[in-house]
Amino acid sequence: MKVNVMADILKANDLLAKDIEKLLRDKRIVSWNLMGSPGSGKTAVLEKAIPMLPEGMRVAVIEGDLATSNDAERIAKTGVQSAQINTNGACHLDAAMVRSALEMIDLDGISILFIENVGNLVCPAGFSLGETGRIIVSSVTEGHDKPEKYPSMFSTADLVLVNKMDLVSSTDFRMDYFMKGIKRIKPKADVIPVSARDGSGFEELISWIADHIPGSP
Amino acid sequence: MKVNVMADILKANDLLAKDIEKLLRDKRIVSWNLMGSPGSGKTAVLEKAIPMLPEGMRVAVIEGDLATSNDAERIAKTGVQSAQINTNGACHLDAAMVRSALEMIDLDGISILFIENVGNLVCPAGFSLGETGRIIVSSVTEGHDKPEKYPSMFSTADLVLVNKMDLVSSTDFRMDYFMKGIKRIKPKADVIPVSARDGSGFEELISWIADHIPGSP
Repeated sequence: MKVNVMADILKANDLLAKDIEKLLRDKRIVSWNLMGSPGSGKTAVLEKAIPMLPEGMRVAVIEGDLATSNDAERIAKTGVQSAQINTNGACHLDAAMVRSALEMIDLDGISILFIENVGNLVCPAGFSLGETGRIIVSSVTEGHDKPEKYPSMFSTADLVLVNKMDLVSSTDFRMDYFMKGIKRIKPKADVIPVSARDGSGFEELISWIADHIPGSP
Repeated sequence: MKVNVMADILKANDLLAKDIEKLLRDKRIVSWNLMGSPGSGKTAVLEKAIPMLPEGMRVAVIEGDLATSNDAERIAKTGVQSAQINTNGACHLDAAMVRSALEMIDLDGISILFIENVGNLVCPAGFSLGETGRIIVSSVTEGHDKPEKYPSMFSTADLVLVNKMDLVSSTDFRMDYFMKGIKRIKPKADVIPVSARDGSGFEELISWIADHIPGSP
């Protein structure tokens, strides 16, 4: 019984996700499902990256949280459109929530949509939001064993940002250990070490984002 | 349909949890459900605290993770019994998993059982494991807004450990902001700032643990 109901929920979600995928494709919008632990720096990465994007690349952001509109307010300060979803306790975004949030955003002229998921290194992995791809923000303060300990999440990543590199010398984090985990779980994922605090690695991140705009050279 | 099935799962879990609660009470074992984000330092706190406990206070540990037995191996090095549960992707421990793990542990003479939950600041909050109480490990590198952003988790805490205090001066973490969140979400929770790296705050933690042994003065 439990399994059947879960299958139904996932099937209903996939149908809605396909609608979103088509809507965004028709509007030539690239969308990134941004995932990671609570406090890994997902919002901070967006706050740093958005002002660095080339002028022609217009961005909108959907923020997912159990409670508060803190993150959408932080994003609004960068001058781009942002919409907050409160899941009221649910542990991940689903396609229905994203479709509702999209109605709050004027998508005309937007090239990139970031969808920041609930801070959770488990549940969001199972739910498609109709996104182009997935970016995981993992911070050095969380430790180098996260890929092997949360394989379902890391196995879905197109890009892994290793954030808080400014703190690395104060931790026991070993990049070689982390990379070994990635190579085993998702060898094709790109990995960029960054610091949303001091900006290191962000030029590489901006290039990565630009390279993934359809029709980019 | 979905709601009914979820209610059934929770009811079944609660029945098993009551069995565990009775088993542990009969053996005079105090049990703590240890929860927190991935990489908040739950295992590190145990590694530091266990050798500091008074000799008469014998400990056993159940470790919950999606994958790997890394954490149980780390705990075993402290010389106490440890059992690893792999949830194979599930986002939280449940009472059935804990009951199975208890069969791997010799409970005679044990006074304290720590059950380290899956790293997740959402889902574990909803599932009783028959525990005496709950300890949440939150680290300063995750930011001071976690209580208000994850209210369902923090509202169940008996004790909140604010870990990685050794890094606080390298972050924007504000203890007054964090405490305001705790006061609103769970005013009765105790809060102890600690560093599993340099040991600060651990004398207070050990006193707290000792004070919560039944019959302690």
